[in-house]
Amino acid sequence: MARVLYDLCGIDEGLRFSPYCWRVRYALAHKGLDHETRPWYFTDKQALDFADHDRVPVLVDGDEVVADSYAILRYLDRTYPEAPLLGEGVAEARARFFKHYAERALQPAMLRTIVMDLLNAIHPKDRDYFRETREKRLGRTLEEFHSPAKGLSQLDAALAPLRGCLAAADFIDGEAPAAADYLLFGSFMWARCVSTADLVSNADPVYGWLERMLDCHDGLGRRAMRVTDIEGAYR
Amino acid sequence: MARVLYDLCGIDEGLRFSPYCWRVRYALAHKGLDHETRPWYFTDKQALDFADHDRVPVLVDGDEVVADSYAILRYLDRTYPEAPLLGEGVAEARARFFKHYAERALQPAMLRTIVMDLLNAIHPKDRDYFRETREKRLGRTLEEFHSPAKGLSQLDAALAPLRGCLAAADFIDGEAPAAADYLLFGSFMWARCVSTADLVSNADPVYGWLERMLDCHDGLGRRAMRVTDIEGAYR
Repeated sequence: MARVLYDLCGIDEGLRFSPYCWRVRYALAHKGLDHETRPWYFTDKQALDFADHDRVPVLVDGDEVVADSYAILRYLDRTYPEAPLLGEGVAEARARFFKHYAERALQPAMLRTIVMDLLNAIHPKDRDYFRETREKRLGRTLEEFHSPAKGLSQLDAALAPLRGCLAAADFIDGEAPAAADYLLFGSFMWARCVSTADLVSNADPVYGWLERMLDCHDGLGRRAMRVTDIEGAYR
Repeated sequence: MARVLYDLCGIDEGLRFSPYCWRVRYALAHKGLDHETRPWYFTDKQALDFADHDRVPVLVDGDEVVADSYAILRYLDRTYPEAPLLGEGVAEARARFFKHYAERALQPAMLRTIVMDLLNAIHPKDRDYFRETREKRLGRTLEEFHSPAKGLSQLDAALAPLRGCLAAADFIDGEAPAAADYLLFGSFMWARCVSTADLVSNADPVYGWLERMLDCHDGLGRRAMRVTDIEGAYR
């Protein structure tokens, strides 16, 4: 097939948990674009040399090679203008906020909660790399950083604006999901695939949105393999 | 004049500090719509009976009466479509997030920092009302809630996504300010008018944005009276 997404995998080749790859998988489904995914590991750097990049997602679309989830969404809008994701002008400028909100507010809080589950879900050959790069970034060991209580309380605070939106509309982008929804939901798929932690109470308006996001595009998220589907995943 | 904005004032009739009224003042300037403001006090409930509302902003535009800052922005876009504020469709849906981000993430953090300054800037006849309603909402006394250290640290965390946006563009809405900028900046005007607290360090990308917002529309924000301009404001 002419369209290939390089997609991070873990202890099982079917366990796909990158929040950035999930953004792209939802974006491709949104556009109705067929594709296959190619499993990739953190330490497979040379496999991405052709893209001049060292991380996934990387999308190969015929002769085009695009890296970085946000750049891929922009590329998809430019190349396949029907069913806009980010949109243009002010709509696109506003979408950019959601990228940073996911990466700087939601994910740090989630990571604090799920980091040990995440380590366990990563392929053994990738674990030293993951530990080394993340501990350098965090300035402490994963074990020191790990604090579900602090993470959940941080997440609860970070979700406050989202609750306001979702009390009034089914999706962040209105009546149907688009880029703002996918940019945030990728982070929730990341946590869902590697961990059983309950990040959001079912009394929270965010919970209903998560359920709707799992169901949309023929249950794309709900069908995804979780670590709990893998025999022997918890040693 | 046919266009009148009811605008909250404090110890001086020229001290205008409502974050919601500031949204509307920027929105009117954005559209280039002349107006006069009418000073209003928290306890002047009956002055708004004609609008069937008990808070400002209330905009009277000829025969139209519109209350609530977000509703006023929508009204202005509908009635004066040039120079869109919120825009339509997905752009409008995304703008709504910024309303909640201001009200649920930024303002609670700021209030914790400036609440005693705010009380001091409020007209003496309004202070009992302010204390009673806010203490009921907060579940503690203003003095117990007041904690600049906690407020500033909460604000620092809440601003993380904004920093990402403003590192790449001059305004949240791109090359020029629009509703997302005004929805957030109203909160900063609120703090600026009643307090001298430095909420954002000048090394922060948010700082440059605040300066640009103060300057835009002929220095609308920078020209506004602050509590420090009032003789005897600090007893």
